[in-house]
Amino acid sequence: MTITLQQIQEAHQRIAPYIHRTPVLTNSTINAMAGASLHFKCENFQKIGAFKIRGGMNAALSLPTEKLKNGLATHSSGNHAQAIAYAAKTLGTKAYIVMPDNSPAVKVNAVKGYGAEVTFCAPNQAARETTLQKIIDVTGAEFIHPYDDYRVITGQATCAKELIEDAGLLDIIVAPVGGGGLFSGTCLSTHYLLPNALIYAGEPEGAADAIHSIKSGKVEQAAFVNTIADGLLTTLSDKTLTIIRQYVKEILLVNEDEIKSALRLIYERMKIVVEPSCAVPLAAILKYKEKFTGKKVGVILTGGNVDLSKFGEWFK
Amino acid sequence: MTITLQQIQEAHQRIAPYIHRTPVLTNSTINAMAGASLHFKCENFQKIGAFKIRGGMNAALSLPTEKLKNGLATHSSGNHAQAIAYAAKTLGTKAYIVMPDNSPAVKVNAVKGYGAEVTFCAPNQAARETTLQKIIDVTGAEFIHPYDDYRVITGQATCAKELIEDAGLLDIIVAPVGGGGLFSGTCLSTHYLLPNALIYAGEPEGAADAIHSIKSGKVEQAAFVNTIADGLLTTLSDKTLTIIRQYVKEILLVNEDEIKSALRLIYERMKIVVEPSCAVPLAAILKYKEKFTGKKVGVILTGGNVDLSKFGEWFK
Repeated sequence: MTITLQQIQEAHQRIAPYIHRTPVLTNSTINAMAGASLHFKCENFQKIGAFKIRGGMNAALSLPTEKLKNGLATHSSGNHAQAIAYAAKTLGTKAYIVMPDNSPAVKVNAVKGYGAEVTFCAPNQAARETTLQKIIDVTGAEFIHPYDDYRVITGQATCAKELIEDAGLLDIIVAPVGGGGLFSGTCLSTHYLLPNALIYAGEPEGAADAIHSIKSGKVEQAAFVNTIADGLLTTLSDKTLTIIRQYVKEILLVNEDEIKSALRLIYERMKIVVEPSCAVPLAAILKYKEKFTGKKVGVILTGGNVDLSKFGEWFK
Repeated sequence: MTITLQQIQEAHQRIAPYIHRTPVLTNSTINAMAGASLHFKCENFQKIGAFKIRGGMNAALSLPTEKLKNGLATHSSGNHAQAIAYAAKTLGTKAYIVMPDNSPAVKVNAVKGYGAEVTFCAPNQAARETTLQKIIDVTGAEFIHPYDDYRVITGQATCAKELIEDAGLLDIIVAPVGGGGLFSGTCLSTHYLLPNALIYAGEPEGAADAIHSIKSGKVEQAAFVNTIADGLLTTLSDKTLTIIRQYVKEILLVNEDEIKSALRLIYERMKIVVEPSCAVPLAAILKYKEKFTGKKVGVILTGGNVDLSKFGEWFK
């Protein structure tokens, strides 16, 4: 299976009425620090506060009307849950979201706020899957995986497509990598639209699975997990790994101090609220400066759904 | 002395090459909460991170070349100091900034970062003025007051002018009031460009001087001072009071809890970093809902220069 440029273009047309065309911002102070011209695609300003609506909406809109009537279902405690809930609400169908019973109330409420039906399960992968399967058996709802789904990957690819259209000729694109839905989509759009551009991923040392998966060619686990970039804790899937392995130039690791410094820079200088995951690419650019010097670089800021009570811990 | 529309237009042309035309943002969730259509003018994205560059730059550009050579001078520990420092640097002259010797290092460094010469004084008004006067006597630099200066007020008026041009026909404009430089400029632009619009100010209960000054007709002090909106601690001046008294519909008081809730709303929903002062108008809109129901409202967000270490205190 290959996702074609035409499929990405069709997905973009399909979802355009339901999403924001988010701005691309620049900052002269950060450019001076990086020695490069950075163009930040601000998905923190996207509907539901993150790029995930692109993939969720594309998957939902790809369903036949009869199937869509049965509803959408997923297991997630994060932005993907909100994306599916919002897509269902917008398209007039039901959303069934399975969440671990230790999910923060703020996330549960956000999903319920979009009218989704939340079912709690034990906080482990097996419980998630069996709970979800039971719901699907009863309702006939369509399962939309957060990233191991070509419809989702195609939707996420529209983010880099917009960035490239709006920022013009870029030498390099950098995005964070977690499950790889956004990053594999970024690889595809960049490959088609800017075939000469280099594609880097930023990954936390404290969630370093993608870098090993790319080397071994199979989905690996991180040796240890400890990062504030909590959007990047998931491992790749077969689908995302295959695409990423084909196009990525390199995965750049950054540590927690580097992530926190980059996060502070984004807040202090750009005056925008982003999730810690967003700081990972900028941290990589500032750490591996020689790769970026003098280049025009696109950077994807993936979302802005933060728990403000964490600020005290992030910004001391 | 009256500031004319033509003077505001000329100021706008004069400073336009040196400032950003900041975006006007909307947010559907906040609109639903307010029952009104709010249009936020985002001066947190302005050069130096606040509207103050408008007034500072207009004053500097109004000087004859010979006078400008002697440099610019002011006493301020806040955004106005950065504005004067930035204006001087941009125009190739010197800036002399008098700051109280208890100013936070982060503010001193920001001003020094723009190449200004900082002179410390005892933290009281008399020391500020005598220290500044000595510098002016020696250098011949031009004193630019933070708000009691018609050149500054005219520059700040360009902010509401842009908001009105970009948001279209507004029923109401709301801005915060501190020393009244921005607010008096907002009054003038609104009066000239939207003569039927109502003009409200938001003011903290813990810095409630303007509301009393408007009533008595002379510059009054606040009965007590205790607010996180630290940009609004100054009192009006004769110049700003005279203008504001002529055009303001009402000054709306809000308490600290209301300011903190509105601040949280801006961070959580709009995903932007703003100073606490910016939350005061939104707090007023949500508190005095009946005045705004169904209206199209322009709201000025004045700046985004925050000390991130305060986040833990603001967002518990």
